[in-house]
Amino acid sequence: VTGSAGSGPRPGPADPPVAALGEDGLVASVVARFPGGPGLLVGPGDDAAVLAGAGPVVVSTDTLVEGHDFRQEWSSAYDVGVKTAAQNFADIAAMGGRPTALLVSLALPAGLPGSWAVGLADGLADECARAGAVMAGGDVSEAAEIVVTGTALGSLAGAPVLRSGAGAGDVVALAGVVGPSAAGWALLAAASAGSAPTDAVPTDAVPTDAVLTDPVLADLVDAHRRPAPPYPAGPRAALAGATAMIDTSDGLLRDAARIAAASGVTLDLSRTALTPGADLVAAARVLGVDPLDWVLTGGEDHALLACFPPTVALPPGFRVIGRVLAGAGEVLVDGAPRPGSAGWTHF
Amino acid sequence: VTGSAGSGPRPGPADPPVAALGEDGLVASVVARFPGGPGLLVGPGDDAAVLAGAGPVVVSTDTLVEGHDFRQEWSSAYDVGVKTAAQNFADIAAMGGRPTALLVSLALPAGLPGSWAVGLADGLADECARAGAVMAGGDVSEAAEIVVTGTALGSLAGAPVLRSGAGAGDVVALAGVVGPSAAGWALLAAASAGSAPTDAVPTDAVPTDAVLTDPVLADLVDAHRRPAPPYPAGPRAALAGATAMIDTSDGLLRDAARIAAASGVTLDLSRTALTPGADLVAAARVLGVDPLDWVLTGGEDHALLACFPPTVALPPGFRVIGRVLAGAGEVLVDGAPRPGSAGWTHF
Repeated sequence: VTGSAGSGPRPGPADPPVAALGEDGLVASVVARFPGGPGLLVGPGDDAAVLAGAGPVVVSTDTLVEGHDFRQEWSSAYDVGVKTAAQNFADIAAMGGRPTALLVSLALPAGLPGSWAVGLADGLADECARAGAVMAGGDVSEAAEIVVTGTALGSLAGAPVLRSGAGAGDVVALAGVVGPSAAGWALLAAASAGSAPTDAVPTDAVPTDAVLTDPVLADLVDAHRRPAPPYPAGPRAALAGATAMIDTSDGLLRDAARIAAASGVTLDLSRTALTPGADLVAAARVLGVDPLDWVLTGGEDHALLACFPPTVALPPGFRVIGRVLAGAGEVLVDGAPRPGSAGWTHF
Repeated sequence: VTGSAGSGPRPGPADPPVAALGEDGLVASVVARFPGGPGLLVGPGDDAAVLAGAGPVVVSTDTLVEGHDFRQEWSSAYDVGVKTAAQNFADIAAMGGRPTALLVSLALPAGLPGSWAVGLADGLADECARAGAVMAGGDVSEAAEIVVTGTALGSLAGAPVLRSGAGAGDVVALAGVVGPSAAGWALLAAASAGSAPTDAVPTDAVPTDAVLTDPVLADLVDAHRRPAPPYPAGPRAALAGATAMIDTSDGLLRDAARIAAASGVTLDLSRTALTPGADLVAAARVLGVDPLDWVLTGGEDHALLACFPPTVALPPGFRVIGRVLAGAGEVLVDGAPRPGSAGWTHF
């Protein structure tokens, strides 16, 4: 890592670097993109923001680091803004919470174009709007590489849904998609390599230079760039009596294992219920891989994985993908352990 | 900036690097240092934390970047933890809020010793205890340099105190110290240079190698490493009817100018009330500088600067340092503008 602004856009006369804007100018240009909202009693610009509140506060923080969590050549500033907001709000939804606000700390190289920060702000603002939350504040610092830290706040309609409440006999259900983000990442990696990634690619494969123009494949790439967690499913699950919930940030098997470990149960997933969709099958054919791997181990889709008592009518958006068995913290597929990779880990 | 772990401690057999601990091991070793508390309904370890709440939430975020906001050779991990918590909680207090919780995102080089993260956690935990708050959660990522982002939450006893409410006739008051952090920084810079910093140092100066062993000077260095904001003065000021408040993170003149600009008034500070203390005078004699510069432009002390109606009895901890005049956003000292540096700016 060189500490430069990566391979993204360069500053120019019409787009001065953040260092030329100065701290106040940079903050002003970013804050101008945030509309506020009724829950924001005091918005950005003072020592702290003040949010309306009347009960418990759900709060979580998550960081994206250039070169580790995103690449400038693959993701625009807008994409990084959406992703920062989405992965933080998904944690709120995974507690059964409704997102209410986001704060963002930016550490940026001095030579980064000012437009990058504004693009990021637009992505943050749009995803806040989609989640029904406000941008409440932030901070800017200079650093060798881009580090974007979001902190999300939310409210609860009832008790929070932990990872630890699943019991034998519960059904395992999923809201949202699993696999598209990993498939999109693999397509970007293949396209940026400039050629088919392996000798195993079938001869009828879509040419690599067409990967990003095929509409189905382009949607998968977009799913990697801008995940779309099913936020409303979180509070709905809580109200329906979900016993445990998590978002699939690190892959279905790995996140299911977290519920299994916290609850002291085994989750048995159904291979049939996890059959890859036509989009994943198409992408896997291009790349010569097994699309089920994306479904089982692909991270960053931020779907909601929840357990419900068997008598509960599942809330809209959830579908059954397995059942909870007595036993010691395992995850099975059709009753058997699944060998191989189990998702993403930092470090 | 090289992206290395700086000049701090190196990993060894008894202190493996964070990469060897793995994400889960690193998180576990850090979270073990946080005791929880009655307001923390769900602590670290799930998708998000849940805090008890019954009214508006004050929230602020602030980042420390290695090489910009701290140096490993001058500040221990513990010091960085204290400083992260302190500068975030000071923003809560500056709104009239009581700190309730802190979240911290860590971006760390893979080769950093694991003990650094644990030392940081101890500093965070101790400053949380001093402020009456809990550590509610966090996140770890890999990065080229250390980036520590804190997000503080707080509660309000009444209306928040903004920067914009000061009126002509108000008194200007200060709780806490201004100058020691900047003096401590200057002493560290001089000591690390290995000799007296300028030719202007008088011949009776304390030898540079004694700077850090003289108890008065060592206290100033500690004030730089571990600021001690007067948190309880914030809610007290709000209850007493403060019309405007800010914490002195960037220097007294610069932060006073923010109140002046936001309120559309002029703040006239008293030179007499800002007479440097004996500790600053002693340090200034060593370094051959004017200690008043530290008082007026030194940042990072996180004192609370507030305006009160003239009829108000000042709450404990505050002392009068000036008055508010009608006029357009100026800061004066004894009625005259003060030339020269006006504090710290990022970028």
